[in-house]
Amino acid sequence: MTGSEGSFRIGLLGHGTVGAAFEALLPKHAERIALITGMRPEISGVLTRERGSFASILERSHLIVELIGGIEPAREYALRAMRAGRHVVTANKQLLSQYGEELWDVARAEGVQLRFEGAVAGVVPVIRVLQESLSGAKIDRLHGIVNGTTNFILSEMARTGMSFGEALAEAQRLGYAEADPSEDVDGRDAAAKMAILARLAFDTPVHLDQVRYEGIEQIQPDDLEYARELGLGLKLIGTAERIRNALSVRVHPAFLYPGHPLASIGGPFNAVTVESNEITEITMSGPGAGGPQTASAVLGDVISAMIPPASTPPTMSVLEIVQDVVSAFYLHLEVADRPGVLAQVAQLLARHEVSVKSVVQKGLHDQARLVMVVHPVLESKFERAMEEIAGLDSLRAPPRAIRVLEEEFG
Amino acid sequence: MTGSEGSFRIGLLGHGTVGAAFEALLPKHAERIALITGMRPEISGVLTRERGSFASILERSHLIVELIGGIEPAREYALRAMRAGRHVVTANKQLLSQYGEELWDVARAEGVQLRFEGAVAGVVPVIRVLQESLSGAKIDRLHGIVNGTTNFILSEMARTGMSFGEALAEAQRLGYAEADPSEDVDGRDAAAKMAILARLAFDTPVHLDQVRYEGIEQIQPDDLEYARELGLGLKLIGTAERIRNALSVRVHPAFLYPGHPLASIGGPFNAVTVESNEITEITMSGPGAGGPQTASAVLGDVISAMIPPASTPPTMSVLEIVQDVVSAFYLHLEVADRPGVLAQVAQLLARHEVSVKSVVQKGLHDQARLVMVVHPVLESKFERAMEEIAGLDSLRAPPRAIRVLEEEFG
Repeated sequence: MTGSEGSFRIGLLGHGTVGAAFEALLPKHAERIALITGMRPEISGVLTRERGSFASILERSHLIVELIGGIEPAREYALRAMRAGRHVVTANKQLLSQYGEELWDVARAEGVQLRFEGAVAGVVPVIRVLQESLSGAKIDRLHGIVNGTTNFILSEMARTGMSFGEALAEAQRLGYAEADPSEDVDGRDAAAKMAILARLAFDTPVHLDQVRYEGIEQIQPDDLEYARELGLGLKLIGTAERIRNALSVRVHPAFLYPGHPLASIGGPFNAVTVESNEITEITMSGPGAGGPQTASAVLGDVISAMIPPASTPPTMSVLEIVQDVVSAFYLHLEVADRPGVLAQVAQLLARHEVSVKSVVQKGLHDQARLVMVVHPVLESKFERAMEEIAGLDSLRAPPRAIRVLEEEFG
Repeated sequence: MTGSEGSFRIGLLGHGTVGAAFEALLPKHAERIALITGMRPEISGVLTRERGSFASILERSHLIVELIGGIEPAREYALRAMRAGRHVVTANKQLLSQYGEELWDVARAEGVQLRFEGAVAGVVPVIRVLQESLSGAKIDRLHGIVNGTTNFILSEMARTGMSFGEALAEAQRLGYAEADPSEDVDGRDAAAKMAILARLAFDTPVHLDQVRYEGIEQIQPDDLEYARELGLGLKLIGTAERIRNALSVRVHPAFLYPGHPLASIGGPFNAVTVESNEITEITMSGPGAGGPQTASAVLGDVISAMIPPASTPPTMSVLEIVQDVVSAFYLHLEVADRPGVLAQVAQLLARHEVSVKSVVQKGLHDQARLVMVVHPVLESKFERAMEEIAGLDSLRAPPRAIRVLEEEFG
């Protein structure tokens, strides 16, 4: 199908927050798009749970916008649309992080476009930049704040001293967290997005199940307070990095030094930093979600699809995916206030090759605490040290550890 | 010409820092590019002052990379290449900010691509994001730190208390400033880049001559010191903004509040923030120049040109370009230490509708100073107030004013 009468017909699947925002946005830009592309875009049909037939919408459309979310029927519809020769634009991170290879294979085989800027970081153009601008760069590492809910919660906890539960309630009140926030706060939403970013940055298939993730439910207000004294701020950080010929993809809370380009990203914003020997680093940030923002990303994809083909990401160098990596840690120990405890802990750490960078002793008597930052160490070694520390008589509570992102840039 | 034997031949014009870096970078990525595009890129010829013939290189090439810089012969070669049906990739900001319309018209007429990511902010993908990702957004305003030399100098002055001259010498020693830094420090380089960004963001032809610019030569170390007490940091800021149905494009030093997304951009980095009602804002940052970074941007453009067509920016809504805009200002007055001076100044400002936001009185006797921040006001009104202030008996030195960027985001 081509735009024979000068119109470009878009079938819209799903009419939630983003779908409704997209339907409202399109007419505002139709004239401008017609000038750019020579074709006037219009909605050829909307499929919701209550109304519309997929087959009939598909028949009438040049391109399908999939905003249903979840796996089925989104997967079936996307596959059927591409097999019928239609381009597909989606914002579906669950689908791409679990069935991306199947979808990309079909897109390549059918010679159609599958675009998904809205799936990660909303309107922040990280997908396009990875696929196009940086297609001439060898990427070494990517760090992202890719979940706005958790970034808002951590910002609020740091700003006000609130507990996690209080900050979550505040996020829900302001519309930054859903009624069931579990996939956001446990890190799984960020893990899906990191699987997609890692796929593009490293040309290696990455399934959501291969991404290790931790959430922010365990973060205590006093961790944030002590860390501030050390000059650190806390974020939920996604990392994808090349480690020799392997790839690590993970999501966990991490402290950042103030010079880090992600350190200043507050509230519900998202940001991604891409590092490469050749280019040093670039950082992109902006609102991570929200109907109008994601709809704007979807519309950018629609316009690009109207212009002509982007490449679908081919699989090339397949990197092994590793789990055990090197990290620096902040360590918080509630200790008995008696001589020799610090020496005991320090010796134990040294035995596991964990080297202390800074240490602060806080409080007295039954409030005594050791707060320290240790140099980067293989996480498995650090975990073994933590297990031993947890067994020490001199500890009054389980040890708490949070990763620290080292400042590795200029 | 098509890649008949599976090779894609690139004619390279210019062999300075970026040209040499591009020639070195291409072979490292040739195999990967061949996998993405189905064609293996290779250099078909290099034109320098000493060697090579443009006509012969053109004949042998699918695409011309123009890295000569300046107006002629870069303009002639780019036009000849496009008229011969070749795509052109350039990093030439002077050329595009003065002859962009001519070049884009030819590209459109010939159906070839003219790509120029490397012309602004090096590898920071601001051109592509404006042309593609944000083609579905109505942009209201764009702020940029688009000159790394001046950002480095201002960062050093703030960090160390150095004078402008000392910081410039340091920048030259480290390779962040050229032997003749005049176009960087007087704002003209940033003005050329802002002309290009404004063209893309607002679909309006903008010539370098329509961009008002000021440099940083007049900045005094104590301005930075007092401003820090007010919580402000100083940057050379480029602004392009829609004001009703007109457009203002300008470059000048401006103070930023710490919450501004450009406030944390230090050293030789570049960054651009794009604001739109629909998307709030997105910010992109990274190394602004340097041979390898710009070469990487050029290579990204080459790969995109190998895939297929981007649109060349059509002229659509032509906005009037205005010069008189609303700004907030920091104001530094060396005053006689006697009663009534503040009242006199305040009355004078009020008569010109300039409203004071905060004021600090510093020093005593012949060191007495008034340091104030005023609310946003039409610049012409502020200038008239400044002229009157300059004539006051109670002033010991000419008044100094620097714009303050208001925090208008979440």
